[in-house]
Amino acid sequence: MRQSELFTKTRREAPADEVAKNAQLLIRAGYVHKEMAGVYSYLPLGLRTLNKIVEIIRQEMNAIGGQELFMSALQDKELWSRTDRWDDAKVDNWFKTTMKSGGETGLGITHEEPLTRIMTSHIASYRDLPARAYQFQNKFRNELRAKSGIMRGKEFLMKDLYSFDASEEAHETFYAAARDAYVRVFDRVGLGDRTYVTFASGGIFSEFSEEFQTVSDAGEDLIYVDEEKRLSFNKEVLTDDVLAKFGVDRANLVEKKAIEVGNIFHLGTRFSEALGLTFKDEQGADKPVVMGSYGIGPTRLMGTIVEALSDEKGLVWPEEVAPFAYHIVSLGNDDAVSATADALYEKLSGAGVEVLYDDRDLRAGEKFADSDLIGIPKRIVVGKDAAATGMFEVVNRATGAVLKKTADEILA
Amino acid sequence: MRQSELFTKTRREAPADEVAKNAQLLIRAGYVHKEMAGVYSYLPLGLRTLNKIVEIIRQEMNAIGGQELFMSALQDKELWSRTDRWDDAKVDNWFKTTMKSGGETGLGITHEEPLTRIMTSHIASYRDLPARAYQFQNKFRNELRAKSGIMRGKEFLMKDLYSFDASEEAHETFYAAARDAYVRVFDRVGLGDRTYVTFASGGIFSEFSEEFQTVSDAGEDLIYVDEEKRLSFNKEVLTDDVLAKFGVDRANLVEKKAIEVGNIFHLGTRFSEALGLTFKDEQGADKPVVMGSYGIGPTRLMGTIVEALSDEKGLVWPEEVAPFAYHIVSLGNDDAVSATADALYEKLSGAGVEVLYDDRDLRAGEKFADSDLIGIPKRIVVGKDAAATGMFEVVNRATGAVLKKTADEILA
Repeated sequence: MRQSELFTKTRREAPADEVAKNAQLLIRAGYVHKEMAGVYSYLPLGLRTLNKIVEIIRQEMNAIGGQELFMSALQDKELWSRTDRWDDAKVDNWFKTTMKSGGETGLGITHEEPLTRIMTSHIASYRDLPARAYQFQNKFRNELRAKSGIMRGKEFLMKDLYSFDASEEAHETFYAAARDAYVRVFDRVGLGDRTYVTFASGGIFSEFSEEFQTVSDAGEDLIYVDEEKRLSFNKEVLTDDVLAKFGVDRANLVEKKAIEVGNIFHLGTRFSEALGLTFKDEQGADKPVVMGSYGIGPTRLMGTIVEALSDEKGLVWPEEVAPFAYHIVSLGNDDAVSATADALYEKLSGAGVEVLYDDRDLRAGEKFADSDLIGIPKRIVVGKDAAATGMFEVVNRATGAVLKKTADEILA
Repeated sequence: MRQSELFTKTRREAPADEVAKNAQLLIRAGYVHKEMAGVYSYLPLGLRTLNKIVEIIRQEMNAIGGQELFMSALQDKELWSRTDRWDDAKVDNWFKTTMKSGGETGLGITHEEPLTRIMTSHIASYRDLPARAYQFQNKFRNELRAKSGIMRGKEFLMKDLYSFDASEEAHETFYAAARDAYVRVFDRVGLGDRTYVTFASGGIFSEFSEEFQTVSDAGEDLIYVDEEKRLSFNKEVLTDDVLAKFGVDRANLVEKKAIEVGNIFHLGTRFSEALGLTFKDEQGADKPVVMGSYGIGPTRLMGTIVEALSDEKGLVWPEEVAPFAYHIVSLGNDDAVSATADALYEKLSGAGVEVLYDDRDLRAGEKFADSDLIGIPKRIVVGKDAAATGMFEVVNRATGAVLKKTADEILA
């Protein structure tokens, strides 16, 4: 796309009340707009990036048998009362509102309850199991403080997957597959080396749940990492018994700040028993379905990538999540330069390569500063030299490394 | 996909409280789940269909220069107060709620206000115009009565596009292009022949706006159609002056029930003046931006397609919006039949054709009834004959026409 046609502009300063680095950079680069504290809109560059993250997660969820659906945000009070999660004394971050048609409703904070109820219409027999359903859907949480930019919003995109199995064993097998899929997601978005599977409290039905924690100074959590063993623990499970079980010496643990980018959880039969989701087994006996839940917030993940990888000049996107693969920057308003840059843009975009083309009539310094801020992985500089020789400077945003290439070499 | 793995099942009866034909059929076929009156979740078949509709609209919006973004549902009371659309006495369908961080917020009923404010950060000069931005985003409206299934939800998906131009003339040119794009959308989803551009009241800034009305007994609107001239009018503009202007004789108008599936609207400078969205023109003078808004509800459109095209046996999807192109139905649990059906499924899906394969061990009558209900455009029957001869019956869901084809002929 031609940058002269992109409706967003960069800006020198973020809003004065924005304290999170991720939101400051994303706002300055024109990726997001801050509506209110903890509420952000995604502008074209931001939506492109978010959609790249969503598509990676979708592929990995489909690969483990996930079927995509889309549930409502408006929630049925009666349903949530049956699992005792409606009362503000029990769950303190509902947005609740009144329906003109009568009664209260709330905005979905998570979706175990509605999906379990949906499944009572579709699961009756062991033959109907397993089932794995997931969605990308905006959740709402009435946060008192929202100071972490897009990492903790009052409204945020969540991928939530839920598993339904006939037995604990079948559940455990899927849970392990989901853990592996999560590892692949964080690898693919460029955070694999700094993201740790972290043992956390498991609730009633299991000893542990697992969190995926990305080490970052912007983290709100503390984790305790044994680097050599690549094992990590949340404070709540840091007992001598647990350490002994994993053969970890407390002296080897290093405390790190981290951002929780995902979690996987054994739900057991808590929701299926409360909401009547049972199946007939091969002997005809009624049994409650065994469930699990698996969350990744794509918007939080996008903020985490910014916190982890950006530098003093701006955003730095890994290739798999960048809004464009290349940023062509033409220098000067020389006709030969424009013709060369136009031709390169047509050649690359005609071949299906995603290119942002800064065709604006601005000074070189301003265009380079914008390009650094926007953070596309590779910048192709088109000046008089390139127009004369057909050799383009290709600059790697992350490393600063420069290669000289012809158009055909770039395309290859 | 193999139907044995699809987690949804069909059902004989819709919920007793569901009075709309579209929701009755979609629930029975496993496309949607009713959460509450006017609130529906989209199950895998329903989401596939909805995404097909979304993608058609996206293509047509991109083709007229639309740039996609995604705004928040949570709205800033102060912003809406400035256009006098916060007060319940002025706008009566807000869902409002209280933030723990202080103050009230509401769930977006439409997005003129936030987008106009966003644009004040990006539009400063005539050089920054035009801009066309759109989104697919869930709107919330606190409907007192919600009896039209997915055609009128308390929560529903909307495509809303907004245009920003430097002059009335530039706006009119884009408005005409948007009208043409809308005509293409309704053609592509299979409703072109029964959808009329209908003149309606234009508000302060223009004589008319235009509604796209699809003729249907389930419609909540009445339109007045001159069939010969393909002109249609809303009751509010049905004056002698208007008829004279279009050369229409009142005696030739036929009253029809119709569903409003889209609308395009001149906003003039109402929002830009109220919210300070101005630009410097070529002479350096400050002028308010001229705006337009353009809406299509993909969920309502999906419901309209059901109302218009379904029959007594179930759903009937046009090819462009069907969740799958083919429905392979195997008959009996004969090994040769299974092998033949498996091979056909692998061949078609391997070639990128979208196929639902009913591989379940059920009676033929039950499988045919399910297939009719689900409404995939073409059914391929695989019985002993097909296994023996390699000739498959391909049945057209809409017409009932039957063709005999080999696997290669189907693929071609």
